Amino acid sequence: MTQYNIALIGFGGVNRALAELIAGSNDRWNAELGFRLNIVAVTDLHLGSVISPNGIDARMLVETRFARGGFAQLSGGSAEADNEKVIKQAPADIVAEATFTNPVDGEPAVSHCRWALESGKHVVTTNKGPVALAAAELKALGARHGVMFEHEGAVMSGTPVIRMAQRTLAGAGLHGFEGILNGTSNFVLGRMEGGLSFAEAVKEAKGLGYAEADPTADVEGHDVRLKVVILANELLGGKLTPQDVDCKGISGLTVADIDAATREGYRWKLIGSASVRQDGGIAARVGPQRLALDHALAAVGGAINAISLKTDLLGAVTVTGPGAGRVETAYALLSDIITIHQCRPSADKKEAA
Amino acid sequence: MTQYNIALIGFGGVNRALAELIAGSNDRWNAELGFRLNIVAVTDLHLGSVISPNGIDARMLVETRFARGGFAQLSGGSAEADNEKVIKQAPADIVAEATFTNPVDGEPAVSHCRWALESGKHVVTTNKGPVALAAAELKALGARHGVMFEHEGAVMSGTPVIRMAQRTLAGAGLHGFEGILNGTSNFVLGRMEGGLSFAEAVKEAKGLGYAEADPTADVEGHDVRLKVVILANELLGGKLTPQDVDCKGISGLTVADIDAATREGYRWKLIGSASVRQDGGIAARVGPQRLALDHALAAVGGAINAISLKTDLLGAVTVTGPGAGRVETAYALLSDIITIHQCRPSADKKEAA
Repeated sequence: MTQYNIALIGFGGVNRALAELIAGSNDRWNAELGFRLNIVAVTDLHLGSVISPNGIDARMLVETRFARGGFAQLSGGSAEADNEKVIKQAPADIVAEATFTNPVDGEPAVSHCRWALESGKHVVTTNKGPVALAAAELKALGARHGVMFEHEGAVMSGTPVIRMAQRTLAGAGLHGFEGILNGTSNFVLGRMEGGLSFAEAVKEAKGLGYAEADPTADVEGHDVRLKVVILANELLGGKLTPQDVDCKGISGLTVADIDAATREGYRWKLIGSASVRQDGGIAARVGPQRLALDHALAAVGGAINAISLKTDLLGAVTVTGPGAGRVETAYALLSDIITIHQCRPSADKKEAA
Repeated sequence: MTQYNIALIGFGGVNRALAELIAGSNDRWNAELGFRLNIVAVTDLHLGSVISPNGIDARMLVETRFARGGFAQLSGGSAEADNEKVIKQAPADIVAEATFTNPVDGEPAVSHCRWALESGKHVVTTNKGPVALAAAELKALGARHGVMFEHEGAVMSGTPVIRMAQRTLAGAGLHGFEGILNGTSNFVLGRMEGGLSFAEAVKEAKGLGYAEADPTADVEGHDVRLKVVILANELLGGKLTPQDVDCKGISGLTVADIDAATREGYRWKLIGSASVRQDGGIAARVGPQRLALDHALAAVGGAINAISLKTDLLGAVTVTGPGAGRVETAYALLSDIITIHQCRPSADKKEAA
């Protein structure tokens, strides 16, 4: 039996959902995937931290209603969250980084990843900050220490995009992509087609939990910009920073714009895209686009995400799926761990197929 | 440098397109994928057969206008196509089977695959016959001889479906699928929405090269039925035969049916689907369905194919892409060869990720 010890850094929605999956599915994973997960450490800004080399019961962890600093009541627990100490000292094989996204310098998540990789621990993360701003450095750091930096969930939650492009479209000549990569914006545009103003639609999105209290990053395209950087660098070999991506959001669109598009057989979508230029450089942008109704992305409605991968041999291949959600994003972490498992030195080759 | 010797069985559109890719892309594949392909044998019902242990120039092969029996003019060539002899005797590592689909017993393609696997040669194929009717036997036969039976292109040409489900959605709890798996039928339904009768739409599809002279297999659902069997067995662990799948085509749909759906906000699509039942069995069917316009498959137009994979953790993940085409289908063979390459005993683990 293979068992991986895992440390959960950040115990908000995503890592909590991963703990729920561990509580419910470990036996099935052992049979189907060939490994079990054992939580040996958790840290959280509000709850504190805990290290337990023998493992922390996942069901207890998700069912207990901890108060602020409440991890102190656990054996090996503390009311303080000393991420550096936990990441470096916990006997973990894998660190699941799911703290908040900092779009400016990626901290403290970038440091979390560095500490883990330098300690010989694999990193799986759904955090766009370190992936968009430091993926090349972190991959190289991991390679030097014989561990992996995996991050499928940074774009479109658990919907496989990076792995699909790299594993199942190898050799097809991928040269660009365009996608609907922010569910909040897409929901808002759909409601504006239904007659709401931008402000009314944003209010409804907040009420449904799609939009944050401050929806700026979603509706101004900043969230999509980070995702475009991640995909352009990972899939097209770019070295972009967010500043390299022209970015415009949807807040400037009026109901009149929406109505005019509808009358003329078009539909506004917030599109993030990149393509390899003739000179080998990469052109990337984020902005609202009027799509004809027969465009592959025009019918993607609600909070769903989709991406069209442009290839030489297949033309466009489009993947549509959830772009957010606790369980959906936690699955991305699981899919990263599956990849780590398949790439372990003792893996049977056939398994990786 | 890794070089695979390949034998092309059947030299119609698909294997000819593969030879064109080999002629144009071998150097790039060597750099990007880590291998080259060397054609050492070709057979074709009309052109004859040729075995050339040192390799046949791919560009010559695709640019020469051979007459009937014309392979006889090549060194090692014959006007006869003795598939058994060529498959068994050619010094090939991989056999690309792309002869015609026989939906009744899969022959002669099933025998082609057996001969290859028994001779220790990997098989890559786009032929639905052997995959739908004998995949389990052929996989087991390959395993006994240390070689692989790969067939991504039997469904949706080069659009990755099987590999996407198995490699990138592992652990997501796949429990069913529904798809638009026949481009001809989908094109015909679209044209009927545009006002044509069934007969007129089929005639147009023939004119555009989408439909065969006898379009029965496409419009009566038989083609989709084979694909449903392939996917249900491969992805859901079924043991179905075509007789287990209820099958109805689109020839019974009238313009009045189409118009009524349009008025009521629906759209007819020919859907192939399967799902795991409570008792562990598999329910599978093919038939026209009225989809609401916001259904993930409703907007898939023209000759494009799409499949929604139903999972526990992600809900539906939909892949849309080409379902046919010479180059698109030849890419499926290439993607099978990439998988064989990644699974070779000496493969570096990281590569397979």
